Amino acid sequence: MERVFRYIDEHREEFLKRLKALLRQPSVAAQNLGMEPCAKLVQQMLEDVGFKTQLLPTDGFPVVYGELEGQSDKTLMFYDHYDVQPPEPLELWESDPWDPQIRDGKLYARGSSDNKGDLTARLCALEAYQKTMGKLPVNIKFVIEGEEEIGSPHLEQFVREHNNLLKADGCIWEFGHKDLKDIPQIYLGLKGICYVELRARGAVSDQHSSWGTIVPNPAWRLIWALNTLKGEDEKILIKGFYDDVRPPSRSELNAVYELDFDERGWRKKFGIKRYLLNLSGKKLRKKHYFEPTCTICGVWSGYTGSGPKTVLPAEARAKIDFRLVPDQKPEKILALLKKHLKREGFGDIEVIGMHGVNPARTPMDDPLVEVVQSTAREVYGVEPVVHPTSAASGPMYTLCQKLGIPAVSTGIGYAHSNTHAPNENIRIEDFIQGIKHIASIVYELGNKSG
Amino acid sequence: MERVFRYIDEHREEFLKRLKALLRQPSVAAQNLGMEPCAKLVQQMLEDVGFKTQLLPTDGFPVVYGELEGQSDKTLMFYDHYDVQPPEPLELWESDPWDPQIRDGKLYARGSSDNKGDLTARLCALEAYQKTMGKLPVNIKFVIEGEEEIGSPHLEQFVREHNNLLKADGCIWEFGHKDLKDIPQIYLGLKGICYVELRARGAVSDQHSSWGTIVPNPAWRLIWALNTLKGEDEKILIKGFYDDVRPPSRSELNAVYELDFDERGWRKKFGIKRYLLNLSGKKLRKKHYFEPTCTICGVWSGYTGSGPKTVLPAEARAKIDFRLVPDQKPEKILALLKKHLKREGFGDIEVIGMHGVNPARTPMDDPLVEVVQSTAREVYGVEPVVHPTSAASGPMYTLCQKLGIPAVSTGIGYAHSNTHAPNENIRIEDFIQGIKHIASIVYELGNKSG
Repeated sequence: MERVFRYIDEHREEFLKRLKALLRQPSVAAQNLGMEPCAKLVQQMLEDVGFKTQLLPTDGFPVVYGELEGQSDKTLMFYDHYDVQPPEPLELWESDPWDPQIRDGKLYARGSSDNKGDLTARLCALEAYQKTMGKLPVNIKFVIEGEEEIGSPHLEQFVREHNNLLKADGCIWEFGHKDLKDIPQIYLGLKGICYVELRARGAVSDQHSSWGTIVPNPAWRLIWALNTLKGEDEKILIKGFYDDVRPPSRSELNAVYELDFDERGWRKKFGIKRYLLNLSGKKLRKKHYFEPTCTICGVWSGYTGSGPKTVLPAEARAKIDFRLVPDQKPEKILALLKKHLKREGFGDIEVIGMHGVNPARTPMDDPLVEVVQSTAREVYGVEPVVHPTSAASGPMYTLCQKLGIPAVSTGIGYAHSNTHAPNENIRIEDFIQGIKHIASIVYELGNKSG
Repeated sequence: MERVFRYIDEHREEFLKRLKALLRQPSVAAQNLGMEPCAKLVQQMLEDVGFKTQLLPTDGFPVVYGELEGQSDKTLMFYDHYDVQPPEPLELWESDPWDPQIRDGKLYARGSSDNKGDLTARLCALEAYQKTMGKLPVNIKFVIEGEEEIGSPHLEQFVREHNNLLKADGCIWEFGHKDLKDIPQIYLGLKGICYVELRARGAVSDQHSSWGTIVPNPAWRLIWALNTLKGEDEKILIKGFYDDVRPPSRSELNAVYELDFDERGWRKKFGIKRYLLNLSGKKLRKKHYFEPTCTICGVWSGYTGSGPKTVLPAEARAKIDFRLVPDQKPEKILALLKKHLKREGFGDIEVIGMHGVNPARTPMDDPLVEVVQSTAREVYGVEPVVHPTSAASGPMYTLCQKLGIPAVSTGIGYAHSNTHAPNENIRIEDFIQGIKHIASIVYELGNKSG
């Protein structure tokens, strides 16, 4: 692998240039911003390293699909996405989210960590391998969707319509990061998600707030309704919400208890005095990895500018994100929520299901896990940590577990990557190491397949 | 008065032009927008009809003060304001709030109703009177402040420092309107106000919402805190909140019960199926006129754009407007609110007092009331309705009742003026009639003083 690694080190500037070009192309699915040009740019990047590609349409944004033949029957799939989170609030960025800037060895831009950095690193790894070692030892497939950040609403359609393309022996999932102590973190599963928007309505337009005496206030209705969803003890109060929660197995629990979760370090990073419910130790981990959530991601109504404005709002809205664990299903949670609000007297509040994905986990003893883990140990020089699941979500179930494909997630982020937040960034050294890690995984899989 | 009225009719276009010029000048105290140019423009308008003026400084925006000598010792004061409400949300305006437009006999612009229309009408009335009848029969004083829409934080200072200027026998307050049946409404009092902003904080910056498992969410904290302020029965739950509420007298109650409050018409205007608590009749009026409120004027946190964004917010804020009735005091309500939140376990939520004014009422049998009422009857051709108080607020107590000056409020708005809301407007006919009404009041006061 020495030759491959040398090639990577020598092409460091070229690889960064490639990543910057991709980051300069906005691609916010939620805002329908720059999606087509970005898909085409990604398609070209695949072609440039030898892939046969197709832009496969869905009822939403297309999937960039690519195949590259190797020397064996074994096939490794990569799952990535070319869409990114909206960059707002813009005023909190230190530099333009679409103008990649390097400061202190870090590359700042929306998507640098999630997921354009990983996508680029993987392609660079395949180029370095081919340029130095010749034909790849395994077949490679790329599935790069454009709707991950809005909950992959058409990935199921894609899988249904292109089932024949999707046979693979394993899948490297889109993300991974080093923790506060620079230990690489590998993930074997993802939580599901049920994302909704609640809308309460009052008068037809904003009114003078002196009418607050007798005219219904949708902000109050929304607040009273939200208050029935979760109490200060963090228990979710929707009837039946926990019914399908499968408790974690003893081995999953142990894996999580053994994680070196740096409670103090993360607390410091978040700038908080204590965790929710003042939790720590095993209870804290168990809650983070294995419990579902009900999180207000946004709420707004009425006047939100500076100074006092005496207005009675006409409308109030909230965005809520339920993270789900096996075997909860997003459609069922949405139905339970609607029933709950009706029962509590808030049938007037509209519930809009914005997206849903199932939770997913890959067994800890799958052979792919060992390959990713041992190559990480080699490249990073430390023992990586394997998580039975992440607390985050993604469509892993749809593309992998449902088709019998084991999936392992690894990537180039770090603890301060500010994923989904202003000033998203990666460390350039992590990007280079990540390229080497992917090249090693490909090599190792080829060797194993013998 | 015929000559005066003819002059008014003949100068209709000129008077409208004057109003439009004033409306074109933005003047949002809450956003420090255009305040100085507006004060100077208003000062010039006073000079143009013969006033000796002064721009009297305060620690906030200055007061435009003017005096015009009449033929008697009697003095009538006018209270107006040159600041207006913020125009947001801009996207709901059918034409630019700072570009007055006439459509269907209505003049649309921010401030057209509140309060630049009235201010202009009063000056036009004084011009018409002088041009046709000569010297005014009474002395006139104008107090035009620049901070009414942000709660008049420096009017008390102004009154303290210019006590000697403020002797008067009566005051015409800034507002009034026709109801849905075109009956002019006259007001003898105002509610007080205590306007606060609540701020809850979580992590130092927005986080990926998968951290909702263990990182405190300020949106949830704010919602739980708000929920402790008022229940679905509309009772305000702050301990001691109602302690100083003086029940309305029998005669005040009767005046309100006898009002021709068009319940169905207003419901239709608001576009609501029922009033709060399904109230109607006497209970509805009693609540609207004599009960204090706790109204959410604005609330916001996290992501409020389109589509789903999975973010754990770093901050959540709410703006709340308590309308007060005699003898509640804003400082005491603010203190009670802070104590309440602490007691309920929300001491982490910051409470910022944004402004406060005392409630005020003028006795129903004051002679000024009869003058305003009888002249309205004459000009409008219908019996006006006298309200012992408005449900709205203003610094009447500070400028009038506290100095022993009776105050009556009358003006040119109508039921669809959209005060404090998008598409604020007046009907041009109401503007012309309002000019005539003010001229008649001045004439009548002169006659009475003999």
